[in-house]
Amino acid sequence: MASKNETTIKAEPGKQDLFITREFDAPRELVFKVFTDPELVPRWLGPRELTMKIDKWDARSGGYYRYVHSDAQGNAYGFHGVMHEVSAPERIIQTFEFEGMPEPGHVSLETARLEELPGGRTRVVVQSVFQSVDDRDGMIQSGMERGLKDSHWRLDELFEELAK
Amino acid sequence: MASKNETTIKAEPGKQDLFITREFDAPRELVFKVFTDPELVPRWLGPRELTMKIDKWDARSGGYYRYVHSDAQGNAYGFHGVMHEVSAPERIIQTFEFEGMPEPGHVSLETARLEELPGGRTRVVVQSVFQSVDDRDGMIQSGMERGLKDSHWRLDELFEELAK
Repeated sequence: MASKNETTIKAEPGKQDLFITREFDAPRELVFKVFTDPELVPRWLGPRELTMKIDKWDARSGGYYRYVHSDAQGNAYGFHGVMHEVSAPERIIQTFEFEGMPEPGHVSLETARLEELPGGRTRVVVQSVFQSVDDRDGMIQSGMERGLKDSHWRLDELFEELAK
Repeated sequence: MASKNETTIKAEPGKQDLFITREFDAPRELVFKVFTDPELVPRWLGPRELTMKIDKWDARSGGYYRYVHSDAQGNAYGFHGVMHEVSAPERIIQTFEFEGMPEPGHVSLETARLEELPGGRTRVVVQSVFQSVDDRDGMIQSGMERGLKDSHWRLDELFEELAK
């Protein structure tokens, strides 16, 4: 499905953070639910060709999460972190680590802010702060943008389905 | 007590992180223990004139912590976060939030690395990454350096006592 909503990634040269901005045709409460409900997250998080399996998902302040993305060839990619703050319906702050790095300990801090827009729409702004500029640039070069856009299209579809 | 070990804080202009480096006359296992044991942490963390009371302290990967510093006048300062990784005896990665900010959601990501030095000594390097340069600079201007140095002198004393 084509979407009129565009995913933008802002990453200034030499900085160790990046900002992802996207609008959705769904009210904030619903966007928050879809971002935090372990029944719904596997339906949109990640590129379409991967299957997401949740290992743990405790979406509350102080909670822990872990999930695994698998492809058709059986390759598995694990991700985990802790949820510093889960405040419905406006803010989620969590850590994020990709388990496939050559060494553990490369962690980023993600802050998602959900803003109400007129007409029952929502703008989501996610900031990711990395331990270094290299870590941030590595994440961007890993093909993050394609995976993000795919996730956001899948979200558009999910919101359309949930609105029926 | 005077210490030959110096606390250094490195904060490059315009960056959103800072590095704290300090050596201790104690082996790495003991430094790790003193950093993570809720019986020992209140004996050194924070300026000497404040009393530290632990509310929660679950020092494991995925754990949550909260503590309160109080002064003689009854003012209380709360801090909390989640522990992304607690790997004895070398690495602790956690979030950190001071509850006295004008608004919640100002969080930093702290990575403490403990390096073994010859002679049963340990170097600790802590990186704090903030959501913005302003948040980092505000933390520095809040008197962080004095509190840190005091904490480190208290650690020196604690290690001396534990070695007896």
